[in-house]
Amino acid sequence: MTSFDDEFDDDVAYDLVVRGGRVVTASDVIDCDIGVRDGRVVALAEHLDLGMREIDANGRYVTPGGVDGHCHLDQPTTDGSVSADDFESGTVSAACGGTTTVIPFAVQQAGMSLRESVQDYHARAEGKAVVDYAFHLIVNDPTEQVLGQELPALIKDGYTSFKIYMTYDDMKLNDHQILDVMAVARREGALCMVHAENADCITWLTDKLERAGMTQPEHHATSRPVPVEREATHRAITLSQLMDTPILIVHVSSGEAVEQIRWAQGRGLKIFGETCPQYLFLTEDDLRKPGFEGAKCLCSPPPRDKESQEVIWDALINGTFQVFSSDHAPTRYDDPKGKKIRGEEASFRYVPNGVPGIETRLPLLFSEGVLKGRIDINQFVALTSTNVAKMYGLHPRKGTIAVGADADLVIWDTGAPFRLDNARLHHNVDYTPYEGMELTAWPGVTVSRGEVVWSDGKPAGVPGHGRFLTCDTPDAARPKERFVSAFRPS
Amino acid sequence: MTSFDDEFDDDVAYDLVVRGGRVVTASDVIDCDIGVRDGRVVALAEHLDLGMREIDANGRYVTPGGVDGHCHLDQPTTDGSVSADDFESGTVSAACGGTTTVIPFAVQQAGMSLRESVQDYHARAEGKAVVDYAFHLIVNDPTEQVLGQELPALIKDGYTSFKIYMTYDDMKLNDHQILDVMAVARREGALCMVHAENADCITWLTDKLERAGMTQPEHHATSRPVPVEREATHRAITLSQLMDTPILIVHVSSGEAVEQIRWAQGRGLKIFGETCPQYLFLTEDDLRKPGFEGAKCLCSPPPRDKESQEVIWDALINGTFQVFSSDHAPTRYDDPKGKKIRGEEASFRYVPNGVPGIETRLPLLFSEGVLKGRIDINQFVALTSTNVAKMYGLHPRKGTIAVGADADLVIWDTGAPFRLDNARLHHNVDYTPYEGMELTAWPGVTVSRGEVVWSDGKPAGVPGHGRFLTCDTPDAARPKERFVSAFRPS
Amino acid sequence: MTSFDDEFDDDVAYDLVVRGGRVVTASDVIDCDIGVRDGRVVALAEHLDLGMREIDANGRYVTPGGVDGHCHLDQPTTDGSVSADDFESGTVSAACGGTTTVIPFAVQQAGMSLRESVQDYHARAEGKAVVDYAFHLIVNDPTEQVLGQELPALIKDGYTSFKIYMTYDDMKLNDHQILDVMAVARREGALCMVHAENADCITWLTDKLERAGMTQPEHHATSRPVPVEREATHRAITLSQLMDTPILIVHVSSGEAVEQIRWAQGRGLKIFGETCPQYLFLTEDDLRKPGFEGAKCLCSPPPRDKESQEVIWDALINGTFQVFSSDHAPTRYDDPKGKKIRGEEASFRYVPNGVPGIETRLPLLFSEGVLKGRIDINQFVALTSTNVAKMYGLHPRKGTIAVGADADLVIWDTGAPFRLDNARLHHNVDYTPYEGMELTAWPGVTVSRGEVVWSDGKPAGVPGHGRFLTCDTPDAARPKERFVSAFRPS
Amino acid sequence: MTSFDDEFDDDVAYDLVVRGGRVVTASDVIDCDIGVRDGRVVALAEHLDLGMREIDANGRYVTPGGVDGHCHLDQPTTDGSVSADDFESGTVSAACGGTTTVIPFAVQQAGMSLRESVQDYHARAEGKAVVDYAFHLIVNDPTEQVLGQELPALIKDGYTSFKIYMTYDDMKLNDHQILDVMAVARREGALCMVHAENADCITWLTDKLERAGMTQPEHHATSRPVPVEREATHRAITLSQLMDTPILIVHVSSGEAVEQIRWAQGRGLKIFGETCPQYLFLTEDDLRKPGFEGAKCLCSPPPRDKESQEVIWDALINGTFQVFSSDHAPTRYDDPKGKKIRGEEASFRYVPNGVPGIETRLPLLFSEGVLKGRIDINQFVALTSTNVAKMYGLHPRKGTIAVGADADLVIWDTGAPFRLDNARLHHNVDYTPYEGMELTAWPGVTVSRGEVVWSDGKPAGVPGHGRFLTCDTPDAARPKERFVSAFRPS
Repeated sequence: MTSFDDEFDDDVAYDLVVRGGRVVTASDVIDCDIGVRDGRVVALAEHLDLGMREIDANGRYVTPGGVDGHCHLDQPTTDGSVSADDFESGTVSAACGGTTTVIPFAVQQAGMSLRESVQDYHARAEGKAVVDYAFHLIVNDPTEQVLGQELPALIKDGYTSFKIYMTYDDMKLNDHQILDVMAVARREGALCMVHAENADCITWLTDKLERAGMTQPEHHATSRPVPVEREATHRAITLSQLMDTPILIVHVSSGEAVEQIRWAQGRGLKIFGETCPQYLFLTEDDLRKPGFEGAKCLCSPPPRDKESQEVIWDALINGTFQVFSSDHAPTRYDDPKGKKIRGEEASFRYVPNGVPGIETRLPLLFSEGVLKGRIDINQFVALTSTNVAKMYGLHPRKGTIAVGADADLVIWDTGAPFRLDNARLHHNVDYTPYEGMELTAWPGVTVSRGEVVWSDGKPAGVPGHGRFLTCDTPDAARPKERFVSAFRPS
Repeated sequence: MTSFDDEFDDDVAYDLVVRGGRVVTASDVIDCDIGVRDGRVVALAEHLDLGMREIDANGRYVTPGGVDGHCHLDQPTTDGSVSADDFESGTVSAACGGTTTVIPFAVQQAGMSLRESVQDYHARAEGKAVVDYAFHLIVNDPTEQVLGQELPALIKDGYTSFKIYMTYDDMKLNDHQILDVMAVARREGALCMVHAENADCITWLTDKLERAGMTQPEHHATSRPVPVEREATHRAITLSQLMDTPILIVHVSSGEAVEQIRWAQGRGLKIFGETCPQYLFLTEDDLRKPGFEGAKCLCSPPPRDKESQEVIWDALINGTFQVFSSDHAPTRYDDPKGKKIRGEEASFRYVPNGVPGIETRLPLLFSEGVLKGRIDINQFVALTSTNVAKMYGLHPRKGTIAVGADADLVIWDTGAPFRLDNARLHHNVDYTPYEGMELTAWPGVTVSRGEVVWSDGKPAGVPGHGRFLTCDTPDAARPKERFVSAFRPS
Repeated sequence: MTSFDDEFDDDVAYDLVVRGGRVVTASDVIDCDIGVRDGRVVALAEHLDLGMREIDANGRYVTPGGVDGHCHLDQPTTDGSVSADDFESGTVSAACGGTTTVIPFAVQQAGMSLRESVQDYHARAEGKAVVDYAFHLIVNDPTEQVLGQELPALIKDGYTSFKIYMTYDDMKLNDHQILDVMAVARREGALCMVHAENADCITWLTDKLERAGMTQPEHHATSRPVPVEREATHRAITLSQLMDTPILIVHVSSGEAVEQIRWAQGRGLKIFGETCPQYLFLTEDDLRKPGFEGAKCLCSPPPRDKESQEVIWDALINGTFQVFSSDHAPTRYDDPKGKKIRGEEASFRYVPNGVPGIETRLPLLFSEGVLKGRIDINQFVALTSTNVAKMYGLHPRKGTIAVGADADLVIWDTGAPFRLDNARLHHNVDYTPYEGMELTAWPGVTVSRGEVVWSDGKPAGVPGHGRFLTCDTPDAARPKERFVSAFRPS
Repeated sequence: MTSFDDEFDDDVAYDLVVRGGRVVTASDVIDCDIGVRDGRVVALAEHLDLGMREIDANGRYVTPGGVDGHCHLDQPTTDGSVSADDFESGTVSAACGGTTTVIPFAVQQAGMSLRESVQDYHARAEGKAVVDYAFHLIVNDPTEQVLGQELPALIKDGYTSFKIYMTYDDMKLNDHQILDVMAVARREGALCMVHAENADCITWLTDKLERAGMTQPEHHATSRPVPVEREATHRAITLSQLMDTPILIVHVSSGEAVEQIRWAQGRGLKIFGETCPQYLFLTEDDLRKPGFEGAKCLCSPPPRDKESQEVIWDALINGTFQVFSSDHAPTRYDDPKGKKIRGEEASFRYVPNGVPGIETRLPLLFSEGVLKGRIDINQFVALTSTNVAKMYGLHPRKGTIAVGADADLVIWDTGAPFRLDNARLHHNVDYTPYEGMELTAWPGVTVSRGEVVWSDGKPAGVPGHGRFLTCDTPDAARPKERFVSAFRPS
């Protein structure tokens, strides 16, 4: 017997059908329709029946929604700066740029337990996000309480990755503490992300530069030259090797750091690498812009030179890096607590680090990577979505277009060149470091769990639609008995 | 208006439904049904309607049929040896081991044009194959006619890859000839496969060994030590670099060759790598078996040592190698023209090189790689199927389970340990080098274009079912403007 | 007034003539007589007139007296251990083993200024030494006073090299402090010696080992595995690179550290390397001797394995290392404050580190290096004498046999094999780690500034004969405008 | 009984005394007098009695006469070109530039046995040379007769080094032949010098360039890019490794070749390296001089770029190279058989390769290396004299200033800058590639076996003074039991 509902169901099997697209995974490009029900993909087929809603993707690329594995939203600070993006503006911006999952950082706050910090961060996100989100932790005070109880409990609760800093005075861990944290990661099945720069060298050089009156934004780069990153990368690799636990070196900027990572990977160590748009598209010269404008491109590690950009591209192409993130750090430039005011009177040392990029990450890589032939579109999907989801235990729910996965989709408009203009972006930052750059790709439609969140050039997401995601054990951190790496060399 | 056919079509939409499997691609593992019509996959969905035929794959892994990119079937020889497998026995053996596409070699025969050699090879295949096949060419006499006319025409006709030898007196090309051939590959969009061993060194050492009475199978390894492979690998890389055209170094056996390949890849050169089961599971010690039995494991390059096996595993895991092939070389051991008779009275020099393995390739890697946790199942699919299809221009028709792809499928039986026994294999060779090895995985069902070719422990393929496949431009050989590498680091 | 002696002096031109030896420098082997007057070599010639004293060296090798650039004598400790050798026993032992210059360490003592520490150390040496000596400094508390005033003044006074530690809780400097010290070295023209092991890793591992009850001498090696040395070596190189000042990595033990040094040297960085007998002749297995005897071979870095020994030999042969020192650390084994008592009840952590070797350094390298054909005799002289003197600003007064140089000479007895026996050594330590080893070379006569200090198997030195040497700017630390390296690749 | 002569001898002990110089060896700088008798140094002392002849070297550097281990004099050619320098003009030029030993090449001539070729070459030298000379052999036709009889006999007779070519159609050996030659070197104790460029690649590229009308001197560099040198270097290393016999890679031009050599040395292989002034002071741009003037700098390998020059300097400094030679190749530019006429009408392919430099070698390295602080003066002596003499079995007779050595001396004038002007050189070539370069050092006096051969800006040598030197077993080629390397890292 067939109920009315069932019959109706037979007639309109899908809440949404995306029709006629070139559906892309990390492995394949498939000409097919996508059937969505209850926010998930339930069918891929040559021809599907009519859906409640139809999107015509005829001949256009349809990729999995981006997963931004490294971004900062509404993150409490200790230096008096202010996060310009909260979970609403940040996720709207993400959605408009094709990203449907963000993983910002719940930072361990002074005077709070790590658990309380996480709860506080949940409160900041609650009801605001227009796309789904998970949390990394930032561990900056690995007390016995944190190591022995809080971290293990939080990992079990689905916070399975944490970032540690080898630099920044208020964040940095010493090697002993890093080993402590890695030991927890190993035992509990979590993944350490490492910001690899040598704190002592930077402080030493910064002091000398300030004494010499060299305090402009470009001296930020002088204060942390390539060997400072290379050294910390080598050290992080060594600590990971001693602990026999995987790590991800984040925001790699230089060929010498790439060399260290490749050397380690070649020896079978489980070292993963991430880079960001700023290392493909900016150079140290951008820090020399007139006035104090260089501060707009000030981040750590700093952008390097043209040759480094090529090496970073190569490392994306040849698989040294597994993931490509934004490291979105939303500080306004011309603002009472912004980059300009904080640094101009004093020194580059007081300029909040980081550049915005949550919205431009995918279009930049699609335009300059895929459409200029540096990487193919499967690599694009792997680097921006699939591998990120695998890296952080969100796959297969996120990161792919497959039966059973969340219906997070981007339908691309490509071909017509246009210039990047911060006025058309949706973050709450008053600049983009890529202002004026010519691109040829932008999401036409973004779908989050079956709902359109960006279309016709307009944000369409509803705050609160975005849900918190607990993360499984990251693929890389699963016991060796199961596998070594889920996302490398396929 | 709906015709009767259409209505029927509505009722029985699929010729075959594989139900409830864990469907694996190079990127994902998807719990879904697979709908097949006219030999192609037409739908992947949570639930599909009844098919004309149903296969219950409940909870079992379903992988794309293997693509064996390196095997020798019914290949004419000049040394008096005989290929034990023709296209029938060879493809039956392939099907029983889960391989649904084979790419043997149409060798340039003395007294024939390359075109004639290809036609002759077609005649050998015609009506015999139970699974699909394409041809590589072997160019051993690159005359002006071959370079200027035959090769370009054959490439246009779908023979888009060719192997060249840096060793074997009757096969080897000198560096000048290799550059000539690579120039054609570059211009016409084809892929060179390179057997990299230094001919002069091998001849020199072999002469010395024979003079010293060192003529046993183990001296085959002595005659071609690791530096001989490393040198030729470095030279092949250099020639590829000069010509700016991609190459695939086949059957890599040693850590020193791996080092060369990794070095080249790190510099952005388009160097690809292949290895084979014999370099994971055999060592030089196997050449020392009593009697002349060592000859059963004699191949070139020779198996090395335990440490090399680990490095070869690492290079599979970390993406240095893109493809895993059998290099199936079907010479019988105890036969008037077999390995034993040809070599025992004379010298290892006269033993036909190579080992059989077309049927054991996938089960060996599944058992020892996937189930022992060295690689994950996505890597398994990439290495044995997807990347091979991409490498040789057969993707997306072959190499994946996706809407629109040929319905080439393997449904795996895993878990129950058994011992390899040559009596249960289906090639026409009187031994397997892996005799007695314990495995825990074997294909339960193999499907080729929707037809079952292996099931219930019985070959079920029909000679002639296998069709010849023309190859597109290999992904790696496509113009740089489109992309660099289709299959690397996803 | 002219005494009879002075007049006689006119007739007898030389106080001493060493006749008929094979005189060796870092560059040459010369058959000639050596004429000595006033403690210095004044003539080398085919035939010299009679000297006041004659030594017949007919056909025997005559090498420059050894310069031991790394040894500990009467060094104040903070851990309750006691230096078994003071300046008398230590220099007697040196002389008996062919060493005529020692450079022990004036360590910065708690509660004393660096200058006071140096004065205290002078008091310990005064009137005791039988051969000449200079001082390195050990900087373990680089206060502003030390950096800004004491160090510069001491460097000007001839203390031109100092050692810094990256490990040992009471000694270690952090990276910021190391940069401070290197900055002084660069500005004032001094040389930093670096003990490169990562303190945090060692402490972390030691804690874990102790908690697991793994406290035997062999666990000392477990607590500081090769990557711990490699990491610190890489870090030291980076700091040196940032500061653009040369450093010497002392007592290198492992192939991975060698690799880092070679990499740096290949890039033109001024990184020098030292190794010691313990890394050529001991392995980790020696720490496993029954009872607590392994403690006799406990030093940092620990001895590694056979393969490492080969790499260390290679690095001596191919010039990666410039100097070969003893790192003589004279702690008795079976003594109330000795290795056994301090560690046996507690843990390897409490065993004073280091092995004795001031007397055996030259004979070991002569026997195993020169006479077994691994190095030639010019390399022997370079590694044990010439390069050490150049490294620390004592050349050409020390380190060679040349007109104008101090008459520090060793006349070798070679060929007759004998076994090392601690009873025949002259240090005040109750064991030698090389007990029972067969050697074929030992100094027959040692001459210090023209005076015989060892002959006929008997010490002949007079306490107080040894003088303090001020050191010039080390060759490596001289301004780039003059030269880069005085002792490398000749 | 004492003859009058003996008595006189007592009064005037020395034929020559060089007084007050700063005497330099590869190891030391010694302020002393040098006493010479019968052409040999017999005494070094603070003060020597009067000699029959006196040279005042007060405060000036006195170095061993240069040994040019790679130069071409009166060498028969097959391409119609002519050697502008015979043994007279060549050795006069050498003497005026401070070189007192030359080792040109006795090339195996068509229609002559190797022995006859050597005899012919002796005839060319007889009575002409003003400084001493030895011969390398060039083996270009390694017949059984050559390998089995002639080479072994010639080695025994003191011709202990030979050069082999991997390029040039009339010279090149294939890998099998190279192994044959190396086998003789190993067995008989000789040293192979290898010109490492890949012949096939060069021919292939040259053909393409000519077809494209790219025939100017700069296209010579295009026809043999860096990978062509790197590949051959790697291959030569491999052949040496297989044969376990040392080789010297001559005239290394590029960083990639340096990398190969360093890699091999680091692994303990006995690979030595040579470079020449043209790789320190010329670049590819010099091949682009207007007219056909670029041909003046055309040599193989070609000069590279500025960055390569730095790497080549580094490799001199850090000991990767042991010897520094001229590769003097005296072809006139504007001459019926000269570079211009032969190439201008045709193609760079027909321009005789090589540049002159026998006279400028030492002054260039002294000015740019020593006086600009890149190397120290001991390294200068090692690279230009001591190591060369050791490399070819001429030490200690040649290559040093020591009692017993030949009195081959250079007393340097330094400090006053002047410009190089071919008119002031003494070779018979009508140009120098270094025309107009500013130098600050030139030999003031050159002494060959006690006789002044250059002084007061005038050649003073007598043809026939120069004697043929038989060479001992090269140090590097001595049995491992004696030593490995005589001249490396002192």
